[in-house]
Amino acid sequence: MSCVFCAIVAGEAPAIRIYEDDDYLALLDIRPFTRGHTLVIPKQHTVDLTDTPPETVAAMVRIGQRIARAARISGLHADGNNVVINDGKAAFQTVFHIHLHVLPRRNGDKLSFAKNMLLRRDPDREESGRLLREALAQLDSAAQD
Amino acid sequence: MSCVFCAIVAGEAPAIRIYEDDDYLALLDIRPFTRGHTLVIPKQHTVDLTDTPPETVAAMVRIGQRIARAARISGLHADGNNVVINDGKAAFQTVFHIHLHVLPRRNGDKLSFAKNMLLRRDPDREESGRLLREALAQLDSAAQD
Ligand SMILES: [Zn+2]
Ligand SMILES: [Zn+2]
Repeated sequence: MSCVFCAIVAGEAPAIRIYEDDDYLALLDIRPFTRGHTLVIPKQHTVDLTDTPPETVAAMVRIGQRIARAARISGLHADGNNVVINDGKAAFQTVFHIHLHVLPRRNGDKLSFAKNMLLRRDPDREESGRLLREALAQLDSAAQD
Repeated sequence: MSCVFCAIVAGEAPAIRIYEDDDYLALLDIRPFTRGHTLVIPKQHTVDLTDTPPETVAAMVRIGQRIARAARISGLHADGNNVVINDGKAAFQTVFHIHLHVLPRRNGDKLSFAKNMLLRRDPDREESGRLLREALAQLDSAAQD
């Protein structure tokens, strides 16, 4: 399979999963800019904003917003998030299966953010995944109160 | 009025408008990273992803996707776009009325993109606005065929 995200959806490539439903999957970026750098993808393969239905983009963003809110209350202690779609090679898109980036940010992290744009590493991706999943569950249980 | 985007919505501050409906407004950023750098804002004031209803975020993104598609067919000749929400001061948010950035990109513009992150200028904002409005109208008339 030539698309790495389709391979992950099919269970043929590994990923640290943050969220999953019938149509969408959220996973940690393997080369993170910041701790908890998450990608939200539709399971159905499309390339970019020119061929992805508006409903699909809206649903990706809805999940991304939820992950951004989770990052703030999570053990990652995010103070904010960049939520980004890179639409096309000219805009730094590298995997041509549409995806939404959620980059948890912390006050004063500008230097490490810039450094990680080159290095892209996380000391403990498994732990970052656990912290985000835990915070999503916390948001869910708050919504049920 | 202390919020510049609320002032623009109220017609009390100037802006080059790209799109407007009852609930949303798209305008050119006054300090653009790239030509045609557009902001999509809800007319109702909210701050960031923590207090903005998911429906509002989805509607902003839907308009942003349309502008991204317009930028590609426009006289700006975009080859791609970065579509970005900066959620919180830690994530470079500077105006605390939620907004979505659409940054038209061209192949090989990486250097000018980086330079404009510092300089933020557009040789002719009026013309950029006209080109985007024209392309949106073109998308609309194509949809009606
Ligand atoms: Zn794919
Ligand atoms: Zn406002």
